[in-house]
Amino acid sequence: MKILVVGANGQIGRHLVQSIQNSGEHVARAMVRKEEQVSHFKELGAETAVVDLEGEIEEIAKAADGVDAVVFTAGSGPKTGKDKTIMVDLDGAVKTIEATKKAGVKRFVIISSYDTTREAIQNAGESMAPYVVAKHYADEWLRGAGLDYTMIHPGLLTNDAGTGKVDVGPSVKADNVAREDIANVIFESLKNDATIGKEFKVINGQTPIQEALGNL
Amino acid sequence: MKILVVGANGQIGRHLVQSIQNSGEHVARAMVRKEEQVSHFKELGAETAVVDLEGEIEEIAKAADGVDAVVFTAGSGPKTGKDKTIMVDLDGAVKTIEATKKAGVKRFVIISSYDTTREAIQNAGESMAPYVVAKHYADEWLRGAGLDYTMIHPGLLTNDAGTGKVDVGPSVKADNVAREDIANVIFESLKNDATIGKEFKVINGQTPIQEALGNL
Repeated sequence: MKILVVGANGQIGRHLVQSIQNSGEHVARAMVRKEEQVSHFKELGAETAVVDLEGEIEEIAKAADGVDAVVFTAGSGPKTGKDKTIMVDLDGAVKTIEATKKAGVKRFVIISSYDTTREAIQNAGESMAPYVVAKHYADEWLRGAGLDYTMIHPGLLTNDAGTGKVDVGPSVKADNVAREDIANVIFESLKNDATIGKEFKVINGQTPIQEALGNL
Repeated sequence: MKILVVGANGQIGRHLVQSIQNSGEHVARAMVRKEEQVSHFKELGAETAVVDLEGEIEEIAKAADGVDAVVFTAGSGPKTGKDKTIMVDLDGAVKTIEATKKAGVKRFVIISSYDTTREAIQNAGESMAPYVVAKHYADEWLRGAGLDYTMIHPGLLTNDAGTGKVDVGPSVKADNVAREDIANVIFESLKNDATIGKEFKVINGQTPIQEALGNL
């Protein structure tokens, strides 16, 4: 499998490319924004593509050419303004979905946030609500896009080492989860077609990732 | 006809409520955010509803109860941050659309911006792009909502007195247009069912509004 990782230079993205390359069997194509981010991924043996998510759909579609799956794990991050929340978390995600269709690729995994429902928007504080809204509409777009998608809603992301064990489900209780484990949930989801059309939350837990996804 | 005007206290909204009340035949229900905005509309003989667009769909649906049409002419305006662009121009519009459906109302008019296409997003400068993105997704939501909608794309809005004459069409050249004329384009659209399902640009021009809409 060749997998385009959009947002490869993010923390989850870096773990994911590493896992894909470690497999020996699959290949990552790391999509990054800046030329200077490329070398890290080349050293891992991954393919690379330098594309700005604020650019045109056509550029993203070129990066998706010939891959078997696309993973969207980009995010504007908490340090940028709400303008980037709109441009990256919402519009960047939608453009990646449209680019995936344009490239003729069917399989898509999105890293959403923990809860993007209407209720979550209403319950979010004033500073978080715009982010939840952006993710809400990106998720809605994906649901209607006709792709073979999997939507992953991680708990509170930490930089702890992954344990390889998680709890997954439509309504697990909010808790921490290591970015490294999320990366492996993505990778295992791509290898398990039973996750197509599924949306689930992921937190640290007791069940090995493969088995947890098998129980969905 | 009873018409819920969402964003009644905006400059277009005030003109619109005035026109509706002046007709003697139709009635406006002015939806405003603050209690102190109510008296202006009561003096015009309009009904009023105090609802925050950042609140729940249910509250907006209550305001839409029993009306024949809903007009969305709210906007966060250029003075607020991009957080309000997301919360009002995008999510406020979508919530109003959903509230309209919930209230069993079919007729909907939205004041979009001049150009909300993908090309317009790409061509917008960095400071305007988030606004265009927000309006883009609000428009997309409306197209898929199953309502009897009219989508009005005004040129550069001015506070000049209305002339009662406009140019309308899918691709008129960008030019100024008086807010007062846009208010009357909304009102005339509501009275002309041939505008249902139509999306058009409006600029100052030479053709009386009724006639211009009739030529669409």
